[in-house]
Amino acid sequence: MRELMVDLGERSYPIYIGEGLLPEASSYFLKHGISTKSPLLIVTDSEVASRHLSTLENSLRSGGFTVASAIVDSGESSKSLAVLEKLVTKALEAGLDRKSTIVALGGGVVGDLAGFVAASYMRGVKFVQVPTTILAHDSSVGGKVAVNHPLAKNIIGAFHQPELVLYDLNTLQTLPPREVKAGLSEVVKHGLIWDAEFAQWCEDHAEKLLALDPDSLGYALYKGCSVKAAVVSQDERENDLRAILNLGHTIGHALEAVAGYGELLHGEAISIGMIGSARLGLRYGAPEEVYTTTKRVLSKCGLPVKLPEHFDVDAIMDAMMHDKKFSEKTMVFVVPTAIGTVEIKKDVPTDWVREIVEQLKLEA
Amino acid sequence: MRELMVDLGERSYPIYIGEGLLPEASSYFLKHGISTKSPLLIVTDSEVASRHLSTLENSLRSGGFTVASAIVDSGESSKSLAVLEKLVTKALEAGLDRKSTIVALGGGVVGDLAGFVAASYMRGVKFVQVPTTILAHDSSVGGKVAVNHPLAKNIIGAFHQPELVLYDLNTLQTLPPREVKAGLSEVVKHGLIWDAEFAQWCEDHAEKLLALDPDSLGYALYKGCSVKAAVVSQDERENDLRAILNLGHTIGHALEAVAGYGELLHGEAISIGMIGSARLGLRYGAPEEVYTTTKRVLSKCGLPVKLPEHFDVDAIMDAMMHDKKFSEKTMVFVVPTAIGTVEIKKDVPTDWVREIVEQLKLEA
Ligand SMILES: NC(=O)c1ccc[n+]([C@@H]2O[C@H](COP(=O)([O-])OP(=O)(O)OC[C@H]3O[C@@H](n4cnc5c(N)ncnc54)[C@H](O)[C@@H]3O)[C@@H](O)[C@H]2O)c1
Ligand SMILES: NC(=O)c1ccc[n+]([C@@H]2O[C@H](COP(=O)([O-])OP(=O)(O)OC[C@H]3O[C@@H](n4cnc5c(N)ncnc54)[C@H](O)[C@@H]3O)[C@@H](O)[C@H]2O)c1
Ligand SMILES: [Zn+2]
Ligand SMILES: [Zn+2]
Repeated sequence: MRELMVDLGERSYPIYIGEGLLPEASSYFLKHGISTKSPLLIVTDSEVASRHLSTLENSLRSGGFTVASAIVDSGESSKSLAVLEKLVTKALEAGLDRKSTIVALGGGVVGDLAGFVAASYMRGVKFVQVPTTILAHDSSVGGKVAVNHPLAKNIIGAFHQPELVLYDLNTLQTLPPREVKAGLSEVVKHGLIWDAEFAQWCEDHAEKLLALDPDSLGYALYKGCSVKAAVVSQDERENDLRAILNLGHTIGHALEAVAGYGELLHGEAISIGMIGSARLGLRYGAPEEVYTTTKRVLSKCGLPVKLPEHFDVDAIMDAMMHDKKFSEKTMVFVVPTAIGTVEIKKDVPTDWVREIVEQLKLEA
Repeated sequence: MRELMVDLGERSYPIYIGEGLLPEASSYFLKHGISTKSPLLIVTDSEVASRHLSTLENSLRSGGFTVASAIVDSGESSKSLAVLEKLVTKALEAGLDRKSTIVALGGGVVGDLAGFVAASYMRGVKFVQVPTTILAHDSSVGGKVAVNHPLAKNIIGAFHQPELVLYDLNTLQTLPPREVKAGLSEVVKHGLIWDAEFAQWCEDHAEKLLALDPDSLGYALYKGCSVKAAVVSQDERENDLRAILNLGHTIGHALEAVAGYGELLHGEAISIGMIGSARLGLRYGAPEEVYTTTKRVLSKCGLPVKLPEHFDVDAIMDAMMHDKKFSEKTMVFVVPTAIGTVEIKKDVPTDWVREIVEQLKLEA
């Protein structure tokens, strides 16, 4: 079992990563001051509920907690104000009060949604993250919670830190292979922006990670969470440093916006985006290995590194222009200068970006 | 012009109270660091828009601000997630970014609603309160913002402090008389919980206040805001002291819940509630003048002090039991011990409360 602290002053909290933590959930909850006196609401999705909900409910009930559960549809469409309203109905019916806790059992969708309910129910109650996807090593750390608006993703939200994060590696065994790969994309990103040695380790252990080997998975999530924790500790509210977490995301978000529904998972889109950022790095004089290593690691993790032919470059550029990171005739980009180091470039010529997006179709 | 600071560390902010501030809004905005580079959204309601919106828009535009406005229906029903979603649409269409500001021009409804939009749009943008009701001297100070859920009032919200509060007494001249009286109820409350001299001043100046005499109004709002500011400075997140602001509200909320739609305004309900609290004070040994003075001041302000005959006492008790302040066979109540001083009693026998509610129908 690995343990890690996210250092945010009085809002600091621990992340536990290991096998078999879910059946022991109640002891972790009790240790971190979750009260048995007030009812608690678990929010999960339909895929996760059938596999892991009863384990969590049983542990908490046998620990003396009063537990209600709400199951939302699996998928991004649950991150809406309409679902939030239903969850508040559930919370009221279950008698949740100001001392209650809301628990997210699931991936990033459930974490973001339940987290925003916790941030706003009675103006804020306690929150616990129980992530069940690899991608959620990213979303469960840092306190960003949100729902979507029909016109924009994650636009209605808050910063609301959890009391603890309980990451049971066993729950990951039921993840569909495509979700495994997509999740590894953010793991690799954390190596690329912060820790060259860890990026190398990811390449060396890609096969084991894809096979969900618990030891490798535990280490990868521990390192990934560590990088995220280090960054958000220095910049809780995304004033500057935190922007480096967006490596690959400017192009990635545009690809997600342009792709047909379900064509690209977030992790897949940012994998292609990180190849674009690496190419941009070369333009700014980074050594060739920035590009070759980025591409090799992502490929070994089973991630796409080439933009499918049918994507329309104009549409992608358009989507990027509406991205809040855009200003005038240049764009803001996170650009690698070496493996493990990035810089924020505030005046990347839009022309360069277009050339690079075109090039992405030609990757081998 | 009167000025007052709400002392909350790095979240401190000023309240300006005076005549003719609205046409000067842009200079106050500029003085307090509201950026002209990012567009700004004014949220107001239909009643206020026709009377005061163009004054604010013109001032801000001539000061170099880019301004969009959103007009919601007048009344409590606008404090909903559905209206919040529409306001986010408006904010996106107007191009609001992370450096933008949302301005509430109106009473407590607009303040609570726009404040929650500001708290959650892009996980929090700047917020300015421009209150136009007397009651809003209460709602615009302290940072509590929220929308309603069909099953519960103010249940989805946040703590989000404004950058400044700009209170133009001239806007109050268009308030309907019944809203004037209802607003004075919270003004008097601030005297009753904190400042005996001010409570006496309210009695002495009730006629002038009802006539909207600017000097008296300015002083009353200044004092009311001062008390609220003093209380929230010591307890920003309602852990203890802030509870004293609920004088009259346990009974008052129950009356609002039981009354037919529109029968009792909030201020009217808590006026009756404060008479109940005063009677409870007598039971705990407070001097008779706690009751007589409370009643005299409220009566002079044109507020009801008697529970209308047709109210059902069982229904009122029921509504109070569902109030979050209730626990087991006793209730939590804010009880006056003298004019200007209250105590929180955590074990008021429910029987006493019922007797007092019955008595409220018999007030002369
Ligand atoms: N808050 C942040 O900082 C942050 C960071 C990155 C991403 N996100 C958000 O995270 C979301 C994506 O997260 P995600 O990829 O975890 O998506 P997800 O929560 O939708 O999970 C992916 C899929 O896997 C299923 N699933 C989850 N756990 C499973 C398990 N153990 N076994 C079988 N199936 C399982 C889900 O039902 C879903 O179909 C996006 O909404 C994104 O905006 C947030
Ligand atoms: N956040 C807090 O701490 C807090 C405290 C107390 C009350 N509140 C909230 O405040 C709300 C009540 O506030 P309110 O009484 O100001 O209600 P309101 O905003 O509905 O205003 C009352 C009425 O007066 C109209 N009006 C407002 N300004 C006017 C003007 N200058 N001229 C003419 N008409 C005008 C409005 O359109 C409305 O019809 C409730 O929703 C309550 O929950 C919040
Ligand atoms: Zn991401
Ligand atoms: Zn009130």
